Amino acid sequence: MTMGDKIDAVLDHVDKALPLSLERLFELIRIKSVSTEAAHAQDCRDAAEWLAQDLRGLGFDASVRDTDGHPMVVGHNRADAGPHILFYGHYDVQPVDPLRLWETDPFEPVMKPLPNGDTAIVARGASDDKGQLMTFVEACRAWKAVTGELPVGVSVLFEGEEEAGSPNLMPFLDKTADELAADAIFVCDTDMWDRDTPAVITMVRGLVSQEIEITCADRDLHSGIYGNAARNALQVMGDMIASLRNADGSVAIDGFYDGIRPLPDAVRAQWQSLPFDDEGFLSDVGLSIPAGETDFPVLEQVWARPSCEIHGLWGGYMGDGFKTVIPAKAHAKISFRLVDGQDPEKVRDAFKAHVRNTIPADCSVTFTDIAAAPATVMALDSPFLRKSLGALTEEWGRKAALAGTGGSIPIIGEFKKRLGCDSLLVGFARFDNRIHSPNEKYDLSSFHKGIRSWVRILAALAED
Amino acid sequence: MTMGDKIDAVLDHVDKALPLSLERLFELIRIKSVSTEAAHAQDCRDAAEWLAQDLRGLGFDASVRDTDGHPMVVGHNRADAGPHILFYGHYDVQPVDPLRLWETDPFEPVMKPLPNGDTAIVARGASDDKGQLMTFVEACRAWKAVTGELPVGVSVLFEGEEEAGSPNLMPFLDKTADELAADAIFVCDTDMWDRDTPAVITMVRGLVSQEIEITCADRDLHSGIYGNAARNALQVMGDMIASLRNADGSVAIDGFYDGIRPLPDAVRAQWQSLPFDDEGFLSDVGLSIPAGETDFPVLEQVWARPSCEIHGLWGGYMGDGFKTVIPAKAHAKISFRLVDGQDPEKVRDAFKAHVRNTIPADCSVTFTDIAAAPATVMALDSPFLRKSLGALTEEWGRKAALAGTGGSIPIIGEFKKRLGCDSLLVGFARFDNRIHSPNEKYDLSSFHKGIRSWVRILAALAED
Repeated sequence: MTMGDKIDAVLDHVDKALPLSLERLFELIRIKSVSTEAAHAQDCRDAAEWLAQDLRGLGFDASVRDTDGHPMVVGHNRADAGPHILFYGHYDVQPVDPLRLWETDPFEPVMKPLPNGDTAIVARGASDDKGQLMTFVEACRAWKAVTGELPVGVSVLFEGEEEAGSPNLMPFLDKTADELAADAIFVCDTDMWDRDTPAVITMVRGLVSQEIEITCADRDLHSGIYGNAARNALQVMGDMIASLRNADGSVAIDGFYDGIRPLPDAVRAQWQSLPFDDEGFLSDVGLSIPAGETDFPVLEQVWARPSCEIHGLWGGYMGDGFKTVIPAKAHAKISFRLVDGQDPEKVRDAFKAHVRNTIPADCSVTFTDIAAAPATVMALDSPFLRKSLGALTEEWGRKAALAGTGGSIPIIGEFKKRLGCDSLLVGFARFDNRIHSPNEKYDLSSFHKGIRSWVRILAALAED
Repeated sequence: MTMGDKIDAVLDHVDKALPLSLERLFELIRIKSVSTEAAHAQDCRDAAEWLAQDLRGLGFDASVRDTDGHPMVVGHNRADAGPHILFYGHYDVQPVDPLRLWETDPFEPVMKPLPNGDTAIVARGASDDKGQLMTFVEACRAWKAVTGELPVGVSVLFEGEEEAGSPNLMPFLDKTADELAADAIFVCDTDMWDRDTPAVITMVRGLVSQEIEITCADRDLHSGIYGNAARNALQVMGDMIASLRNADGSVAIDGFYDGIRPLPDAVRAQWQSLPFDDEGFLSDVGLSIPAGETDFPVLEQVWARPSCEIHGLWGGYMGDGFKTVIPAKAHAKISFRLVDGQDPEKVRDAFKAHVRNTIPADCSVTFTDIAAAPATVMALDSPFLRKSLGALTEEWGRKAALAGTGGSIPIIGEFKKRLGCDSLLVGFARFDNRIHSPNEKYDLSSFHKGIRSWVRILAALAED
């Protein structure tokens, strides 16, 4: 049996077994593994146990590994010869609030027909990242079912704290660097270029995230007594937030842009060759005016320029009716997406200095540091990259794109640093997947052709 | 028995019956009559019923009157001759959140010794307004107990929606204008000048309050995909809030100051003669820099200048951990305190125009109108005012002050318009009562000498 025949047989198996693959995905989705909410700690462990058991069923040497947070899942299916790859995904999901905006139960996946003839799998984690990671697991299952083996040696690492900033990943990688050693790392947590065009991502933005609390008076006050004279923490927070951005969309923090390496002309040229519709990108979500730096096109704003976003903001009276309180405290969750050359700790320090300089002298601020990861840029001359692009092009019938991403996958930098290996980001999510939002979905075609793509990539990696 | 002897006997009775007066106040406080929270609707009715029953026990013709919201309590104790007064108070209270900042149960009053030898009654409503309104009820009780009658004819009106902006008061006053007709109106919802100096307030700020919702994208977005390019509703809200104030502390809304009548020189001179410590006023609450217009002293900022305050602000992810969402919506509760000459509806319209002009063209805003009441200024030549000042001066041994207040008591304007009568604002609260805040308190001396003050005022009003 030639490799070509094997691939055809495995792909055929994938097509026929799709209903069973979906059933397993639904089982995993039903486990409410929200990593940032303490109430779901056991659910996170349950998801890890489910994955380890599933991998063992495929012949992997797989186990759940404790950390100081939610556990990791590690599995190995080693080969006697040829390259060995490490596959990474995460089994934790984002919180579901605001729950009232979900049309169906976030943890009970439903199949909904889409206007384009495709079908949506609607649920929290359907795309990010349970649907994506299961494309790889199902591809392995199909190879095993048809040929009894995998084309190359495979290790998997499934994390349970990606949505919480991966606080326990670094020590875990240090401990397991030898065990996880690989010739190439594949990460499945990203989008396709567009509905029909697969992509391998080679640039990932970094992330610095902070929670801040601004305090003015030592108690909440009544505006009928103090209104005008006493500093209002919500006004101070508003002033601070406004001070973060210039009118031209740039970030107004001193030193924020220090060290940034400009986008290589070759990369820019390649991006410009990609079909990208600035207006359509925004109008799809009800907007029309790009919010970032006015002298950069939208694609560069989201892939190659650093950002500052307010993710949460609260203070004062938020209940029914009205309360004429002058709040003493205001809170915000703020992050910065970083690009190549920015130092996360310097950005963090610059932000803190900016806030301290902005608030009135009789107010104070407390910072809680969350994540800090630099941007990463991958080598473009890797044979693993070339083979993956070829396999993707074959499956989708469209030339696979080399792309960037506005997202941050801190593990990419950690893999490089701790395992000494570049990562290839291959994912089958689509722009309209509403990840992190109500009614998250994964297209059935993403899931199905994603599995088929990994079948082909595993075969391509085995070739000389 | 001369009037002087009667007063002495009634005051003596007040002193001896104080423990019983406190027991009744505690009963009223334990009824959780939070008017802005739907869950407490029955509690509001219970408080009204409690008051009506208590008044009937004193010989008032009293009843609970339904409205479209929480009910009113009306009671009459008419006299054959002499002036007839109307007394107003409110039995509803502010919400108690944040509950964790309360040292004791907000609805279980406790007596706590104060460093100055006084005693604090700590509870929600202890001061605002249950403690205050009961000073009048207890004074009536003492007159009845000792002399069997009141020195003047008295009607009372207790409202249950003052903290919710009195939405049903106007139609109620229209319906009951004849029944509530009086020669003077007394309102007990204000502060003394300082710990030892009583005050009658003749200027009350108006209030315009709004809830606003800003919408940018048509859904929450992921900053890893849209960060930088998609407008962030919390950034837009921050920009809008910052745009409301100029660097000199003035409000930056076009037309906001239109029509304001300057403070009469005589009033300013009188205020300047009052002992007021700008620094101490702020340092008492942990602040040092006045936030209002830099060219006005603090007392004028809070009594005679209009303000803009953000009372509540929320949007995005406010839970544990972190979520890199670009929120589609941001919410705020905002109010303006108004001064003599400002038109509430014009201020409201100017604010709306300001917001619409401030937000980006592809974002939208929804306004919910809450309250709108103009400032009120009372005639200074009333005999009722002169007699009240005299009675207060006698009780406290200090010349009673003519003062302003930064608070808004919309009913004052409604009484003037619908009952054709000025109101005298006489209250015994103190600056440090933490009204609307956790650990609200009323000093025992406020309660005790407040009762005694009303005993004297009722007598003074009966004199020619």
